[in-house]
Amino acid sequence: MADVLIVLASKSDKDVGDKARDMLRQFGVSHEVAVASAHRTPEHLKTLVQNSTAKVFIAVAGLSAALPGAIAAHTTRPVIGVPVSGKVSLDALLSVVQMPPGIPVAAVGLDRGENAALLAVQILALSDPELSKKLHEHRKKLEEWVLEDHKALSKD
Amino acid sequence: MADVLIVLASKSDKDVGDKARDMLRQFGVSHEVAVASAHRTPEHLKTLVQNSTAKVFIAVAGLSAALPGAIAAHTTRPVIGVPVSGKVSLDALLSVVQMPPGIPVAAVGLDRGENAALLAVQILALSDPELSKKLHEHRKKLEEWVLEDHKALSKD
Amino acid sequence: MADVLIVLASKSDKDVGDKARDMLRQFGVSHEVAVASAHRTPEHLKTLVQNSTAKVFIAVAGLSAALPGAIAAHTTRPVIGVPVSGKVSLDALLSVVQMPPGIPVAAVGLDRGENAALLAVQILALSDPELSKKLHEHRKKLEEWVLEDHKALSKD
Amino acid sequence: MADVLIVLASKSDKDVGDKARDMLRQFGVSHEVAVASAHRTPEHLKTLVQNSTAKVFIAVAGLSAALPGAIAAHTTRPVIGVPVSGKVSLDALLSVVQMPPGIPVAAVGLDRGENAALLAVQILALSDPELSKKLHEHRKKLEEWVLEDHKALSKD
Amino acid sequence: MADVLIVLASKSDKDVGDKARDMLRQFGVSHEVAVASAHRTPEHLKTLVQNSTAKVFIAVAGLSAALPGAIAAHTTRPVIGVPVSGKVSLDALLSVVQMPPGIPVAAVGLDRGENAALLAVQILALSDPELSKKLHEHRKKLEEWVLEDHKALSKD
Amino acid sequence: MADVLIVLASKSDKDVGDKARDMLRQFGVSHEVAVASAHRTPEHLKTLVQNSTAKVFIAVAGLSAALPGAIAAHTTRPVIGVPVSGKVSLDALLSVVQMPPGIPVAAVGLDRGENAALLAVQILALSDPELSKKLHEHRKKLEEWVLEDHKALSKD
Amino acid sequence: MADVLIVLASKSDKDVGDKARDMLRQFGVSHEVAVASAHRTPEHLKTLVQNSTAKVFIAVAGLSAALPGAIAAHTTRPVIGVPVSGKVSLDALLSVVQMPPGIPVAAVGLDRGENAALLAVQILALSDPELSKKLHEHRKKLEEWVLEDHKALSKD
Amino acid sequence: MADVLIVLASKSDKDVGDKARDMLRQFGVSHEVAVASAHRTPEHLKTLVQNSTAKVFIAVAGLSAALPGAIAAHTTRPVIGVPVSGKVSLDALLSVVQMPPGIPVAAVGLDRGENAALLAVQILALSDPELSKKLHEHRKKLEEWVLEDHKALSKD
Repeated sequence: MADVLIVLASKSDKDVGDKARDMLRQFGVSHEVAVASAHRTPEHLKTLVQNSTAKVFIAVAGLSAALPGAIAAHTTRPVIGVPVSGKVSLDALLSVVQMPPGIPVAAVGLDRGENAALLAVQILALSDPELSKKLHEHRKKLEEWVLEDHKALSKD
Repeated sequence: MADVLIVLASKSDKDVGDKARDMLRQFGVSHEVAVASAHRTPEHLKTLVQNSTAKVFIAVAGLSAALPGAIAAHTTRPVIGVPVSGKVSLDALLSVVQMPPGIPVAAVGLDRGENAALLAVQILALSDPELSKKLHEHRKKLEEWVLEDHKALSKD
Repeated sequence: MADVLIVLASKSDKDVGDKARDMLRQFGVSHEVAVASAHRTPEHLKTLVQNSTAKVFIAVAGLSAALPGAIAAHTTRPVIGVPVSGKVSLDALLSVVQMPPGIPVAAVGLDRGENAALLAVQILALSDPELSKKLHEHRKKLEEWVLEDHKALSKD
Repeated sequence: MADVLIVLASKSDKDVGDKARDMLRQFGVSHEVAVASAHRTPEHLKTLVQNSTAKVFIAVAGLSAALPGAIAAHTTRPVIGVPVSGKVSLDALLSVVQMPPGIPVAAVGLDRGENAALLAVQILALSDPELSKKLHEHRKKLEEWVLEDHKALSKD
Repeated sequence: MADVLIVLASKSDKDVGDKARDMLRQFGVSHEVAVASAHRTPEHLKTLVQNSTAKVFIAVAGLSAALPGAIAAHTTRPVIGVPVSGKVSLDALLSVVQMPPGIPVAAVGLDRGENAALLAVQILALSDPELSKKLHEHRKKLEEWVLEDHKALSKD
Repeated sequence: MADVLIVLASKSDKDVGDKARDMLRQFGVSHEVAVASAHRTPEHLKTLVQNSTAKVFIAVAGLSAALPGAIAAHTTRPVIGVPVSGKVSLDALLSVVQMPPGIPVAAVGLDRGENAALLAVQILALSDPELSKKLHEHRKKLEEWVLEDHKALSKD
Repeated sequence: MADVLIVLASKSDKDVGDKARDMLRQFGVSHEVAVASAHRTPEHLKTLVQNSTAKVFIAVAGLSAALPGAIAAHTTRPVIGVPVSGKVSLDALLSVVQMPPGIPVAAVGLDRGENAALLAVQILALSDPELSKKLHEHRKKLEEWVLEDHKALSKD
Repeated sequence: MADVLIVLASKSDKDVGDKARDMLRQFGVSHEVAVASAHRTPEHLKTLVQNSTAKVFIAVAGLSAALPGAIAAHTTRPVIGVPVSGKVSLDALLSVVQMPPGIPVAAVGLDRGENAALLAVQILALSDPELSKKLHEHRKKLEEWVLEDHKALSKD
């Protein structure tokens, strides 16, 4: 009964998927990882999505990044797409973000698994005050890191 | 007490904003429209975001599309960014989607105000079964339109 | 019992589809037109492809041109993808041509419905000597048109 | 009497050609490899293509990838073009896919020699039921690999 | 016995070819215009180039602009390539300029037929003092035009 | 009381910032370094800019390079933006240079911290004859370096 | 004795130059307009720049936008470059912004003559308190325009 | 009294220049190498070009590749520009090839020093039958290399 389902197009996208996973763990958000291909296993993908009770999907995908859109085709729950950098990079990014009207995908930046996870957390936090509090603390921490760097470098 | 706040970078982005508005109306989702510029009115933008009780922000922005990121800097609620097409187009798209770690923006396609709205509806529907039902019906309608076109064209 | 199935992602791609159709008619190749969307009607698309007895598929698709790949996912018969030009153009082209290993799509140029049809004819002609002869005649005609233009312009 | 002729623009494209070769071997499809340059040996290229009895041509070519088109200019049989990645990459891809009306090339993705071979196999399988069966088995194997990865990673 | 042969890939490139023609006329340089396609009439193109006594070739060509390179393949005389702007534009430009080692093409800017002609004139002028003098006068004229504009606008 | 404030978006941009620093040191221009993020510490950034008495700001920023624009939003003093190269590079460059009317940023080339510093020096030199003299000497040195290289290589 | 010299590469760039001019007029900053080409009138350009007593140069340039750099080569005063949009647009933008180390150009966005002027005003304002005050008022006005649009649209 | 003058924008472009040099040596064409910068030493560049008796100029240039155009501004003899690959690569290529009307530069591919030299040889060969013969032999050699590779690989 995971809140987030992370779907990888192939094992080679594991690194980007792990960034999402680590972030979700940090927030204590329940999640599962799956491997499914829009092109090689369309039936497996469909079953996976339709049987999943996840509230948010994170789709990690490299070239011809059809995966996020293919997931969005089988659900009306939010789908977050993470393009993976490669030989061209723009191909993955454009495939993820340029969706037809009616079937949105929420694209994050190239290889930004952690931002996909944070976006998922932001969505879940809308009805989970505890999670919302954790998000504020996380943002605070980011701020503190910058301020520490500021102190270190401005004294240089 | 609107659920969605649509923020335009300038009046010239109204057309794209209206696509979002029309879709939200169609779903009966409460929403407000604001104009605020990350560069010209940073204080107004900050106040707007921090005082808003909206659950989801939709930021429509053209040139140097800093608006979605600037909103995301002031909230931990989900921010959906709509790049607006122009002389280069890639500049707006890349500025919206390529965010630093920790501050995600959910990018949708160029000028896709309607998809930004649908994404917002999908997010709100996670805790609103009525809305979720409407989403299924909307998806059904999209399907029917395709099937009608199929019938018309395959008989041609 | 058409030899070629032309699939449009939406009615707005009809012009590019018609270029394919006209070329197939010219060669007397049996064909059908269908409308199906990888994202809006994945089930309809799957049924369409799996029930079709077409030998070759031509998929015409615009932005986030997932259609050719989605068809290729449901068949091992050749799929020809036609990217449609738009605001960015490169997005459609890259989505069609950059497929993962194992699931090829035969991409032709932007809006080149006629070339998709010719490629289909070339494929069918491998086991149809009559069609092969027509292809040679068509190529001859192209040549003659160039030579006529040459005569006209070099006398200018 | 090979069914497929793989043409390399130069020895430096051998790696991409070998991906095509390995795949054809796997399917037991007869094939030959040739080196010919559209610019350095146009006569050799022409003779090669016109004397070949291959049913399908696979042209592997890097920058200013004129080779696939130059082959297509001498035959009405299907020509599959494989752009090779390099300093710009887009140059090879665009040169292969953007062909003038009347002379199609079936472009596959950057460096995707294996997909070019699979496309050739799909074309040949149209009149070879044995090959068609092998294609289904190959697709099945791809599917199983994904499912194995799914099992491995989802248990992690 | 023209000094320059202008080759168009098709009649649709006539406008760009005419810019070259007008410039050559202005310099009194003998020239001819031909239409030949690298893909549709490779034999005609070869015969044309090999029978031509032109000292310099100007090749005007649009998408996947293989024409300049195809001419260069049949001669060791200088070939000037003019990419023609279109849906992508970069495709023509990159195809013309990115040639393999050993077979150079002298690329000029998009649609710059006049610059191709000037380059041809510069080449011919190396062994024609009269032409060289005309080139200096032409450059002088360009300079005067700028100075006139300067006078007009700086008084505004 | 530094004349120039160098702002880094994060510690990872230190190398580019150091190029600016070294150049300012060379000219004896007083300067300070700060770390501030448009997205993670918008308040800190605002305070920093509004409290600074620097005459010129240099903003070094990578991904979604909103930093220069965010600084420009809080001051009417000149802001020089340095895009940092990365996976796409064009994203940073376009984000920095494509600003909306009314809020200019002076963009320099990718990773060109030293040019940002020189531009700052040029600006400060307008009211500092000593600095202006140093600039001429620096330009002279650049010239001499080229002339030395010329001597070395032309004798080769 | 103008403070700003606006240099156009040709009369066809007048529209973009006029945006700069209008803005400078609005601020009461003395300025002159000149036409000079880096390629057609290098001597005129050099004389113009070296004889000018302008404190800041604004260079407006389209195709192969060498003008800003060519001006920067003859002065150590600040040069602001305005790329002009055209068939490719990226070519002008990249030519203006990507300068070699030692010779910075301050690039502003495509066609942004008004921002070039504002940048010049910001530079001049460093030693002119009156101008600085006017800049604050101008920024205030921009802010008010946004707030008016906000009022109008949020009531819609 | 060299026939060709190779101009490098800086010592860092020496590798590309050496490719040109080696090719010219191979053809026994007299040549000299110079270093000159369009931006750092405009006077030195002008003197160099105006004093040179070279028939053809080869300009090698990286970032903001203004060098070829700057040379063309001072001569009506043919100028061949070699863009050098770098962080973006397209910037150098576009700066070299996209010249304004009236001042052509003959662009060759990225880093293609050898092709620049061959183009120079082709130009010089127009009035040098000996050189023309050598060009044919060189082309023959290129052809033989391809045929040898063909023999080696087709037997594999």
